[in-house]
Amino acid sequence: MNKLEIRPARPEDMQEVLELIRELAIFEREPHAVELTGEDLLRDGFGQMPRFKCFVAVANGRVKGMALCYPRYSTWKGLVIHLEDLIVTEAARGQGLGSALLTAVIRYAKEEGARRVSWEVLDWNDPAIDFYEGRGARVLRDWDVVQLDARGIETYLERYENI
Amino acid sequence: MNKLEIRPARPEDMQEVLELIRELAIFEREPHAVELTGEDLLRDGFGQMPRFKCFVAVANGRVKGMALCYPRYSTWKGLVIHLEDLIVTEAARGQGLGSALLTAVIRYAKEEGARRVSWEVLDWNDPAIDFYEGRGARVLRDWDVVQLDARGIETYLERYENI
Repeated sequence: MNKLEIRPARPEDMQEVLELIRELAIFEREPHAVELTGEDLLRDGFGQMPRFKCFVAVANGRVKGMALCYPRYSTWKGLVIHLEDLIVTEAARGQGLGSALLTAVIRYAKEEGARRVSWEVLDWNDPAIDFYEGRGARVLRDWDVVQLDARGIETYLERYENI
Repeated sequence: MNKLEIRPARPEDMQEVLELIRELAIFEREPHAVELTGEDLLRDGFGQMPRFKCFVAVANGRVKGMALCYPRYSTWKGLVIHLEDLIVTEAARGQGLGSALLTAVIRYAKEEGARRVSWEVLDWNDPAIDFYEGRGARVLRDWDVVQLDARGIETYLERYENI
């Protein structure tokens, strides 16, 4: 692979970014979980109120990897940049694209004045955990993620809104 | 306690909100971890680019509890509202303030068109986990939170930025 470039995503990259999102969902055996469309990504990433920042790894004119992040807010530290997804297409792994994309996000966090970069990892993914810890990150093993989905939001409000 | 009110926080509430943040940090034996100041909360919550939305529970003219949330972005679902902190001052617990604040955040998420509400919980906090699951939330037990702090950002970039 020649001429690898890491750069901020452009609107015209978003269809290929969506293909990477779908590739990962298929690998995780949840292909139908991706409700997001290319139009959603265009509107949410490049509209009046951008909801995320995306970086892409491009080689031979094709998007081979992407990192998508956005601001969070810590009540202890202030601005945090959260890395939501970092995906490298299967055929392009092992060539440093993931590492280069991670570096792009951390550089962006510094430029934004963030006091922390955060992301999530599967707790059985020891190679990933070793990699992150080797690069100075801390894995908080005693915190779990809680999610109330769209249907759960409706049910919750029906039951508890007027209590 | 009479006349409990749940409402969006105003700039003049932020000093009391900061006191709640500090109360929780002291309880967690990390009093020095709170680097945030009242000025930071004012600027970040009520400036040109608000970084969070805060709700307060007010009784007898005093802020007794707060919930602080902000948007995140799922590459599967789109807009997510993340509840970063929900704090009720120790003397006012057991009176439904926490539940009322949670409901305010979930109503806000619906108004914003969010497809998910997320938060984090300590994995040994069974009463909290039971409460959340009883209200329809899902606890993802196999994901860990990873954090690279401000010093880690500097060290990372010194080492890896030019590789």
